[in-house]
Amino acid sequence: MPDRVAAVREKFTSLKIDAFLITSLTNLRYLFGFTGSNGLAVILPGRIVFITDNRYRDQVRDEVKGADIFIARASLFDELARSKALGQAKRVAFEAAHTSVASWQILTRKFPRLTFLATEKILEKITATRTAAELEHTRTACQIACAVWRELVPKIRTGISENDIAAEISYLGRRAGAEGDAFEPIVASGWRSALPHGLASHKKLAAGEFVVVDFGFRYNGFCSDITRTVFLGEPDAQQRALYDAVLEANTRAREAARAGLRCAELDGVARTSLKKRGYEKEFSHSLGHGLGIDVHSMPGVGARSEDVLQAGNVITIEPGLYVPDSGGVRIEDDVHITEEGSELLTPLDRELICIS
Amino acid sequence: MPDRVAAVREKFTSLKIDAFLITSLTNLRYLFGFTGSNGLAVILPGRIVFITDNRYRDQVRDEVKGADIFIARASLFDELARSKALGQAKRVAFEAAHTSVASWQILTRKFPRLTFLATEKILEKITATRTAAELEHTRTACQIACAVWRELVPKIRTGISENDIAAEISYLGRRAGAEGDAFEPIVASGWRSALPHGLASHKKLAAGEFVVVDFGFRYNGFCSDITRTVFLGEPDAQQRALYDAVLEANTRAREAARAGLRCAELDGVARTSLKKRGYEKEFSHSLGHGLGIDVHSMPGVGARSEDVLQAGNVITIEPGLYVPDSGGVRIEDDVHITEEGSELLTPLDRELICIS
Repeated sequence: MPDRVAAVREKFTSLKIDAFLITSLTNLRYLFGFTGSNGLAVILPGRIVFITDNRYRDQVRDEVKGADIFIARASLFDELARSKALGQAKRVAFEAAHTSVASWQILTRKFPRLTFLATEKILEKITATRTAAELEHTRTACQIACAVWRELVPKIRTGISENDIAAEISYLGRRAGAEGDAFEPIVASGWRSALPHGLASHKKLAAGEFVVVDFGFRYNGFCSDITRTVFLGEPDAQQRALYDAVLEANTRAREAARAGLRCAELDGVARTSLKKRGYEKEFSHSLGHGLGIDVHSMPGVGARSEDVLQAGNVITIEPGLYVPDSGGVRIEDDVHITEEGSELLTPLDRELICIS
Repeated sequence: MPDRVAAVREKFTSLKIDAFLITSLTNLRYLFGFTGSNGLAVILPGRIVFITDNRYRDQVRDEVKGADIFIARASLFDELARSKALGQAKRVAFEAAHTSVASWQILTRKFPRLTFLATEKILEKITATRTAAELEHTRTACQIACAVWRELVPKIRTGISENDIAAEISYLGRRAGAEGDAFEPIVASGWRSALPHGLASHKKLAAGEFVVVDFGFRYNGFCSDITRTVFLGEPDAQQRALYDAVLEANTRAREAARAGLRCAELDGVARTSLKKRGYEKEFSHSLGHGLGIDVHSMPGVGARSEDVLQAGNVITIEPGLYVPDSGGVRIEDDVHITEEGSELLTPLDRELICIS
């Protein structure tokens, strides 16, 4: 994956640095394809140094190409010193959001001659668009989520618990080829559906309730993230109106999404749509988020985001309405942003499913 | 839970501080019982200030007692400034391993008048022993793991994949009342069993293989962590010797564990036992680790640990032998350390199960 490394090197002049230290496992995977749980890399003008531990001795040589590889005898930072990778460097950028103060203290102690520059979101911006291979992994993760939903719906009924549904989701996902859940499944019924992040509980499903089901899977490291809301029984007019408003906001936002649009504007499309139907404070979170190796990636898709949609982004579109002590609805899809518009990665029905 | 707060305040003199800022969610749960995903606390000589966001407005009042609670309008650090909690403070300790450089930069910018002291492991040491209630949660998490293992064994057979077994583990755990996996299940068969951290893969189980199965569950936030190794078919003499050596090391270490013993010594008990049978470099990791809200907690149980076992610790005992390209064996139990010895939390058979 040489393009991303080149993009990092292009920052060297403006940042006045001669090395970039990468410590976040997510970014090590985006840039070098490394899937281990311990590693660091240094990008230098003419060289890449990659350090991991003995557990990944063979794996790192398969995965990381074009780098000088070192296997740490003690800590990664010890090996970094031993490797003399930073011998010629003066000013080294590092990832401020992915480096603890404890690690930073070790770094400054071990390399007293160097100046360390705290940077943020540089690698996240460079890795916010998907390569063709990454997009395929994401597509597969989304296909698994859709297949699981179709298998799951017939199992949803009054009397079973939210936990039972969460157990089914994880099980069906792994059986369908997922590496695992992208995050702990959210299954929130009745008054709990008004909690935007209601992890599954012991609560049993009862008639007259919305059930918000929010889940996703990892495939080759890439995540899907989808939400559907069903109703147990027949909704009254107010409940139907709540659902229809969210559905419309989801549709409007999906139709509006395209490269070049500001993310804040896209959030506004959904927010305006809901407002027209009389809902405002009930939509208490952002419209969505970028989706990649991490479930929450760049770009941010909210009212205060300064990001602009780019071709190759994958984002979620997930308007929701939450009426405290009563109930909530959320409908979430994943889309791949293109120049012309967007590719829907989660082509599942959105009509309200009423389970009798 | 006033004792732990008192223990933090006892550090104020030696650290020369007048406030302790707590940002790790794990420690917020240990000290205050807070289960949300966003919060911070400040312990002052005569007051506790607790800040979270609007999602946890009701929940925080149920969970966190004896603190002045603030709901953040913007960021937690913004609210910390607004609350004037640190108005009288001069020198404030924070958790260096749980604070990113990015967060620390925000703190020093927002509170230019204050001196911030980077500390490590202070709260981890204070929270390394379990309260009676916490021990009950851990016991239940362990009971769930044991029940799942008993249900799982009849399902293990040649031809199914490691992923299939991982799917069963997660499913059975949630059905048995777990909140979820404590970590992604490790299912490693044949040559993969020689990988100490071999996450489940597409590989199918075949005759003549060891299968290492390492899993755990969360119950009320507390983790269990257990490993059993089975054999498919009949092991040869070398394979049997490998298993017997690990079993003996597990037994010897469990028998030796008691309050007052140095953790490095306990590690040595297992290591010496294996060495007597001719194995040394094949035991390539530490004997175990503390077990709490995080799967890896204090105390460290390895050759280089400086910790001493205390009554109330819960630790894993997990000797393993790994023969590259051939296979591996690990047997892991969880024990609660007492003055007299230890309470076994995972009373499951350890004789080698051979599946025909």
